[in-house]
Amino acid sequence: MTASGPTSVVIREVGPRDGLQGEDVCSVADRVTLVDALLGAGVTHLEVGAFVSPKAVPAMAGSDEVIAAVGRPAGVVRAALVPNARGAELALAAGIDELTVTVSASAVYNERNVRMTIDGSVGAITRICALAAGAPVPVPVDVVVSCAFGSPYEGDMAPRGIDDLNRRLLDAGATALTMADTTGMATPRLIEGLLAVTGTDVGLHLHDTRGTGLLNLYAGWQAGVARYDTSVGGLGGSPFAAGAAGNVATESAVALFDDLGVHTGIDLQRLLDAAALAERLVGHELPSRLAYAGPRTRLAGER
Amino acid sequence: MTASGPTSVVIREVGPRDGLQGEDVCSVADRVTLVDALLGAGVTHLEVGAFVSPKAVPAMAGSDEVIAAVGRPAGVVRAALVPNARGAELALAAGIDELTVTVSASAVYNERNVRMTIDGSVGAITRICALAAGAPVPVPVDVVVSCAFGSPYEGDMAPRGIDDLNRRLLDAGATALTMADTTGMATPRLIEGLLAVTGTDVGLHLHDTRGTGLLNLYAGWQAGVARYDTSVGGLGGSPFAAGAAGNVATESAVALFDDLGVHTGIDLQRLLDAAALAERLVGHELPSRLAYAGPRTRLAGER
Repeated sequence: MTASGPTSVVIREVGPRDGLQGEDVCSVADRVTLVDALLGAGVTHLEVGAFVSPKAVPAMAGSDEVIAAVGRPAGVVRAALVPNARGAELALAAGIDELTVTVSASAVYNERNVRMTIDGSVGAITRICALAAGAPVPVPVDVVVSCAFGSPYEGDMAPRGIDDLNRRLLDAGATALTMADTTGMATPRLIEGLLAVTGTDVGLHLHDTRGTGLLNLYAGWQAGVARYDTSVGGLGGSPFAAGAAGNVATESAVALFDDLGVHTGIDLQRLLDAAALAERLVGHELPSRLAYAGPRTRLAGER
Repeated sequence: MTASGPTSVVIREVGPRDGLQGEDVCSVADRVTLVDALLGAGVTHLEVGAFVSPKAVPAMAGSDEVIAAVGRPAGVVRAALVPNARGAELALAAGIDELTVTVSASAVYNERNVRMTIDGSVGAITRICALAAGAPVPVPVDVVVSCAFGSPYEGDMAPRGIDDLNRRLLDAGATALTMADTTGMATPRLIEGLLAVTGTDVGLHLHDTRGTGLLNLYAGWQAGVARYDTSVGGLGGSPFAAGAAGNVATESAVALFDDLGVHTGIDLQRLLDAAALAERLVGHELPSRLAYAGPRTRLAGER
């Protein structure tokens, strides 16, 4: 009946970075505990921090210490967000496995978010990619293209324009591209429409601002995408309306993929334990409904 | 790419019944105001109340007065839930257009919910259908089969068993059948699996307990289903974890169908106004993220 997507997918857990960056500061020790819990659940790819101004984003201060404490678990890709060449140097010095950088498909959004033109951001990304490629062991750079499914300032984004930007980013040295729905404007139609132009060798980074994150992830999977950014507990949002803008909850993605028979390598119960830990660390309820209700296989009266 | 479903669907709005029944009592006047707002948005099929014990469900007391006040708007089907023949008599006397009745596919759930065996419920439904068919103008009876995608007591439900129950219900006089995911246990795989056995001439009534309501609705649409129960604002749940078990929000369904080019006849903006009204009436935030964030077409700085 329904189109079938890939039989195996990679989940990049972004809770410790995209999730925590807007929260009150968690100690380095707490962040390491969360990362360890995620690794214990079978997560093999995750953003552990960001090398940004600690003044602008205090929650990401000490990312080098997090990386050092996490160490180099076998088979795990530890990524960090960097905004510029200086951040890339610091991340590379800290021994990171992957850099993530962002540029917005929306000129206005890019200007407001990082006070640069898109050309300016592509220039910065070119320098970051050169640094990453020149490291003793070259480090991959995943460019996350924000507002790929719509901008709160300009509305719909033309898939051709996104694809042109993607080509420039590959020319700049990007080793992977991720299409981000930054403000929850994606729909299954727009997911399919963009992927038909860009091809499906991209990641999807979907926010749940309008309650459509999991739906869009499913549409992406049906279309053939095998890489997803998600955050444990839906970290980055809040069940209280004002902040309901987190990523798709990792446990919701894993439960869906488990049910579809799609391999993620992640253990749902241990992931739910990590979500409970994340909730304790940030000190408020997270938006993930699955984390509250428990998996469908947990019957009445069971834990 | 993706399977395409029906180009037109019917949304049965259940907020004034399934949504409000668990809330503090709203006055008849407030309930009529909500129904009128929904009708103003283009809703043409809705549960306006229930003829149940006002002691057991005080929020549904005065459903006859709601029906009288709403009147008989042209082209609108006003439904009411009835648990037994006595309720059916009252609903028919009040001039209802459709009866909804429930039976659970889960024997344990049925026993706990209505203290009857499934056979007992089928017997009651038989009597209700006879009353409805014998009315001066025969009234249709939609039987909502709860726990059709899993029971919190027995786990998975066999599609063959559901289909057998459906046949008994049609023999009992049911004019329509709705498959309900009462506790949010459905998945796209289970939706497709059940519909492959029952056929797609059923309604879907999906709860968002695990954040999968809209996803499951989309899977149902892809499989060919053209009838959905939804509740404005996601009424029946709460953004606070303990009660996050409402129906799929009507506005989320309408926004999705609008984007897919599927006709619902409902105006999204006026529906969002009705959701805001519903939130004021119940006095707490509703779980609908779309109601908070606004439609994707509303750009930054716009209302």
